[in-house]
Amino acid sequence: MHPPRLLLDTGSGGKASHRLIKDFFLKHFANEILNRLDDAAILKISGPIAMSTDSYTVTPLFFPGGDIGTLAINGTVNDVAMLGARPLFLSCAFILEEGLEMEVLERIVRSMAQAAAKAQVRIVTGDTKVVPKGAVDQVFINTTGIGEILAQPCPQGHRARPGDAVLVSGTMGDHGLTILATREGLSFEAPIASDCAGLGHLIAKLLKAVPEIHVLRDPTRGGLATTLNEIAGQSGVQCLVREETVPINPVVAAGCSFLGLDPLYLANEGKLVCILPEEHTDQALRIMREDEYGQNAARIGTISNDHPGRVVLQTPLGGHRLLDMLEGAQLPRIC
Amino acid sequence: MHPPRLLLDTGSGGKASHRLIKDFFLKHFANEILNRLDDAAILKISGPIAMSTDSYTVTPLFFPGGDIGTLAINGTVNDVAMLGARPLFLSCAFILEEGLEMEVLERIVRSMAQAAAKAQVRIVTGDTKVVPKGAVDQVFINTTGIGEILAQPCPQGHRARPGDAVLVSGTMGDHGLTILATREGLSFEAPIASDCAGLGHLIAKLLKAVPEIHVLRDPTRGGLATTLNEIAGQSGVQCLVREETVPINPVVAAGCSFLGLDPLYLANEGKLVCILPEEHTDQALRIMREDEYGQNAARIGTISNDHPGRVVLQTPLGGHRLLDMLEGAQLPRIC
Repeated sequence: MHPPRLLLDTGSGGKASHRLIKDFFLKHFANEILNRLDDAAILKISGPIAMSTDSYTVTPLFFPGGDIGTLAINGTVNDVAMLGARPLFLSCAFILEEGLEMEVLERIVRSMAQAAAKAQVRIVTGDTKVVPKGAVDQVFINTTGIGEILAQPCPQGHRARPGDAVLVSGTMGDHGLTILATREGLSFEAPIASDCAGLGHLIAKLLKAVPEIHVLRDPTRGGLATTLNEIAGQSGVQCLVREETVPINPVVAAGCSFLGLDPLYLANEGKLVCILPEEHTDQALRIMREDEYGQNAARIGTISNDHPGRVVLQTPLGGHRLLDMLEGAQLPRIC
Repeated sequence: MHPPRLLLDTGSGGKASHRLIKDFFLKHFANEILNRLDDAAILKISGPIAMSTDSYTVTPLFFPGGDIGTLAINGTVNDVAMLGARPLFLSCAFILEEGLEMEVLERIVRSMAQAAAKAQVRIVTGDTKVVPKGAVDQVFINTTGIGEILAQPCPQGHRARPGDAVLVSGTMGDHGLTILATREGLSFEAPIASDCAGLGHLIAKLLKAVPEIHVLRDPTRGGLATTLNEIAGQSGVQCLVREETVPINPVVAAGCSFLGLDPLYLANEGKLVCILPEEHTDQALRIMREDEYGQNAARIGTISNDHPGRVVLQTPLGGHRLLDMLEGAQLPRIC
């Protein structure tokens, strides 16, 4: 039996570590590769492959629409998928604070298992460290994912070209505002929830139908504005965004307005930006809208070479303003 | 210019994050894959591959023989190599505490770059989170490594067979005692240092000469005793260790004796356990002893089927005692 709270010796590598691995991680994550419990996993995958890593430090651990576990699976699945790859395998490393309630850990592990099953990825190797009380805030999780490349050349941040259309797969800002509201105990006129979701399947469908896609990117930390700035910089192009075309949940829009936040800078955890040759716009939008995670997909802008490296927002009244990269921290520990 | 201490907004995903990535990580880790700064890296590697992950939370950050950066590279390189693979690519994820001195971060990043160059691995993708003061103790690092399998069937923990010889590549306990002594300000009659080292090259040479090797494992947390117990359990065999044949630096032996510690339970970060058919023992020892990291290699025991799952220590006087897996935490935050 495990005590109700995590003891320091659970991270020692000894007996207590092995009990934790068997009773918690193997119970929920079991698959033939992980079950071997070697220091590394042997994977059948043929190259080239995509690899991505992220650490998750979100607070609070649980929030409407997800928790740190769903984020840790879907965030890394999405980063791998954005390079035009099918995510297949994840590593998973926990850093746990001494005294953590085991019931909290089990809730997180259970959500991770569910999210991994839905995204059809397997957790194949892991690590657990337990640090003394105060050395970490409850639970941090790192996941690293690898996947097989579906399209060559891969969609990459430097491939946006003048004339390309800019699409998003849905509403912007839901995750960021949800975390902020949960943390501060705020409520709005209607419930809001994080959009946390794995987009691997949607991307596989998109790339099958439109292999010509130039860029896929998930607008997480720093939001849509920061992501578009990164792409504009990497590709040496301008990105023009028509403000009224950006889908925003009215409750999120009202909440942001009340709090003085810009939803274009708030994190998303289940959305993608897709930049592709203009002529494929309708087909890509149709495929997104048929998917459970792309129902509010929209075209929001156009790539040009007017001011390379810049993102320009065209307001409903026809004015233009520079949409710069996030300066300062809008919200720490958002993911 | 960077301020002398890390600000919270450096982890926002916005401008300050990009400055940190360019000025610190790209400066030291630069390679054509990482330089692209996409969310994931595209890697040319053909399967099957080995994958392993570890988070590093060691305290203090710097110690004789290494630092958290050298550990983060070599520890993961070793886990990948122990499955009989050539480590090729690492991801690297930092969790940094607001207020961390930038000079400390740069020292760590510089050691990581040097360790990666020596081990001939490339850091191809990364992540940086900055959390508010108090949410993490200074710096935690996760690295995940992948490599190409060199030998099939791979050395694995379940492949030890009765009659096999058990070898170690050098002295036991150096890392564990060094960390403890540094933390507590202890000094011994002569200086001691961590054995932190990447063993990829040594393992490639070993497997080329002796592809029949059954098990390779690095005795890190929980030390040699715990590692041998894991193998005995996975393979369903007994492991007999002759105590006087286990190489131990006399200063470490004296320090352990003084402190009441058993060096067989102390962590190593640059050593391996090798289990192989008896007839290849001399050749494997010769190859290890020719390598800079295997000069004190020795045969320490034999596999049998007397008591499956057990590790038995034969003392110099001929007595036998059970060498159990570590129970409790000898030392937290050792790696």
